[in-house]
Amino acid sequence: MEPDFSELDSYLAETDADGYLVHADSEESDQYYLSGFDAPDPYITLYNGEVHLFLFRSLEYGRAKKEARAATVERGSDYDFESLLAEYDPDEARARVLEAFLSEHGVGSIATPPQFPLQTADQLREQGIDVTADDSSIVTKIRAKKTDEEVGYIREAQRANEAAMARAEELISTATVDDEGQLLQNGELLTSERVREEIEVTLLRHGCGLDETIVACGSDGADPHDRGSGPLRAGESIIVDIFPQNKQSKYHADMTRTFCHGEPSDTIREWYDLTQEAKEAALAALEPGATGEEVHAAVCEVYEDAGEPTLRNEPTTETGFIHSTGHGLGLDVHEQPSVAPSGETLEPGHVVTIEPGLYDPDVGGVRIEDFVVVTDDGYENIVDYDEHLVVGE
Amino acid sequence: MEPDFSELDSYLAETDADGYLVHADSEESDQYYLSGFDAPDPYITLYNGEVHLFLFRSLEYGRAKKEARAATVERGSDYDFESLLAEYDPDEARARVLEAFLSEHGVGSIATPPQFPLQTADQLREQGIDVTADDSSIVTKIRAKKTDEEVGYIREAQRANEAAMARAEELISTATVDDEGQLLQNGELLTSERVREEIEVTLLRHGCGLDETIVACGSDGADPHDRGSGPLRAGESIIVDIFPQNKQSKYHADMTRTFCHGEPSDTIREWYDLTQEAKEAALAALEPGATGEEVHAAVCEVYEDAGEPTLRNEPTTETGFIHSTGHGLGLDVHEQPSVAPSGETLEPGHVVTIEPGLYDPDVGGVRIEDFVVVTDDGYENIVDYDEHLVVGE
Repeated sequence: MEPDFSELDSYLAETDADGYLVHADSEESDQYYLSGFDAPDPYITLYNGEVHLFLFRSLEYGRAKKEARAATVERGSDYDFESLLAEYDPDEARARVLEAFLSEHGVGSIATPPQFPLQTADQLREQGIDVTADDSSIVTKIRAKKTDEEVGYIREAQRANEAAMARAEELISTATVDDEGQLLQNGELLTSERVREEIEVTLLRHGCGLDETIVACGSDGADPHDRGSGPLRAGESIIVDIFPQNKQSKYHADMTRTFCHGEPSDTIREWYDLTQEAKEAALAALEPGATGEEVHAAVCEVYEDAGEPTLRNEPTTETGFIHSTGHGLGLDVHEQPSVAPSGETLEPGHVVTIEPGLYDPDVGGVRIEDFVVVTDDGYENIVDYDEHLVVGE
Repeated sequence: MEPDFSELDSYLAETDADGYLVHADSEESDQYYLSGFDAPDPYITLYNGEVHLFLFRSLEYGRAKKEARAATVERGSDYDFESLLAEYDPDEARARVLEAFLSEHGVGSIATPPQFPLQTADQLREQGIDVTADDSSIVTKIRAKKTDEEVGYIREAQRANEAAMARAEELISTATVDDEGQLLQNGELLTSERVREEIEVTLLRHGCGLDETIVACGSDGADPHDRGSGPLRAGESIIVDIFPQNKQSKYHADMTRTFCHGEPSDTIREWYDLTQEAKEAALAALEPGATGEEVHAAVCEVYEDAGEPTLRNEPTTETGFIHSTGHGLGLDVHEQPSVAPSGETLEPGHVVTIEPGLYDPDVGGVRIEDFVVVTDDGYENIVDYDEHLVVGE
């Protein structure tokens, strides 16, 4: 299924640019989305109503012809790159080839993503091309709305995620406890690192990779950016937040559960119930036409009504609800739209996480995270994983 | 151990720039190297004889203070970011804050990496800052020369790599063969995908991750960029090329071996011997002061003397030795210097791969790859893994 680039057509018409140009490898999601081509080295994609690929070198040419969703695939040798290299220094030769490629496609002015490489931009300007960075990140905005096929990829990544979460829960729930309250598996300390390794192996077995996983116990969990380290302890909250990427499709999933081996403190128990309530309130507010800001406000209200600080009513607080409610999810693990103050209007096809949480170094952290796709009349929750705080014992 | 930035000082003096500015997340290796700080969202690093970090938001501020190798760490609130956001649109507010940060450090003109984001550059120019893309990629050049500590990280990644290669070899060598010549493990087809999964799990168990691994049999192996797929077959060459990254240090290793379960063709056998000879010739030419071009030429000579085509004597050949001899290895899996036509002079501390190979879709592929650190009087080979073509039977 082809992405719908009609908003890009409108953008080009409004800004009077002949084309949209990307120069990046496919790790940059705008590039992968626009070109449909996965390559580890930077290449050029031009959109001017159609997608045109350009490779300076021929190495990936055959594969690009086969795999890219481009109307045309061209390479340096189509524009006499070798003779230009003999005549000019390599930078100028590249600029001249690129100018010839743009000219061949009738393009004299381009818009680019904000992160477009400065060197390429300045070289094109020297060749007389008009280059403007697109402040609106239009391609990022377009890819926020997922097709059914993309939602299918995300769903597949989430099934792997659920298997990994089950493995983490199993390790925590079947642990024994030593005299100091530390969790043991097969007589060895059960650490954040060990649970993380088992999560990552499970994901690999399901075709997913990931860079980071959070397994954060007690005060580690009170810092939402701490990945966690060292022994896990009974009676303390353990936040497990997993955001894998399917290696084939490149789409992500994202889910968080909080567990406690044995009896938690009253505060953790209250926070857990409150966080479930906050998540439900967010989901109740979630429909096409609602804004990310409104959904975020629903979470803040639950917490504030219960007397917990939020960044909304106490902008400098370092405890309580100290982050946003959620973010878009797709080729990037954080993308548009945001479910946060000044969050955009939600539209069918948007995929967003809902992840309220409460934090205090003296108590620990609690976070529960699902993610949903916005539908024509509401949303569908993609996450199929039980919520229960207490495991083991 | 601190990196040596004296070449960056000279670069700034020569180009008359007050400072070197990077705006990227730490996935960009120049950013990680200059700042010593690992963060998933873009941040600003200024070098003007000292390293200064700047974060628009406070989220990572505490961690940056602790972990970055910076003389100072500052954030938006140090420059009234909130009031500027109230007065200007977000893009202009960011530009004004950044200008104030540069001005505070006495910087009115900057050089940047070639891949510096265009939007930031143009915004700074509007604020009166002189911005020039550094065509020489000076930080990339500096980090090509490794300290002993960095070589230690690379060595550690290679030990994981050897464990993973041993697992791959074990799977191939202990396989049985079905009536169609396909390899079996426990009664199931042994595929590229299955060997790759076992490699990746082994790497994870040793603290390494990786994006891609090549396990390419027969004609798959004849395309150096084909990762390989489907059943492995007896009597055909199987190229296993693994390039993991240590998750902690972020440094890479890179090694290739070619195996054949059972009896290979005479051609594969000859190619293997020739490729070993080519690798030895490259190593014999490798010393500080030699160029990457000379080392590459040593490989071409072995192959050409044996009548095999190379890109040097047949620039359009699609069989034979159709790639470069090697590349630098460090935070990036491909970095400076190159061991290729026009390859730079090798200096102590450079870490480079040596990976000759021969390819023909009708025969298969053979590649053998070690990597070395250039020393004061020669080189040290970091790879400790046997070379033998025939395994099993």
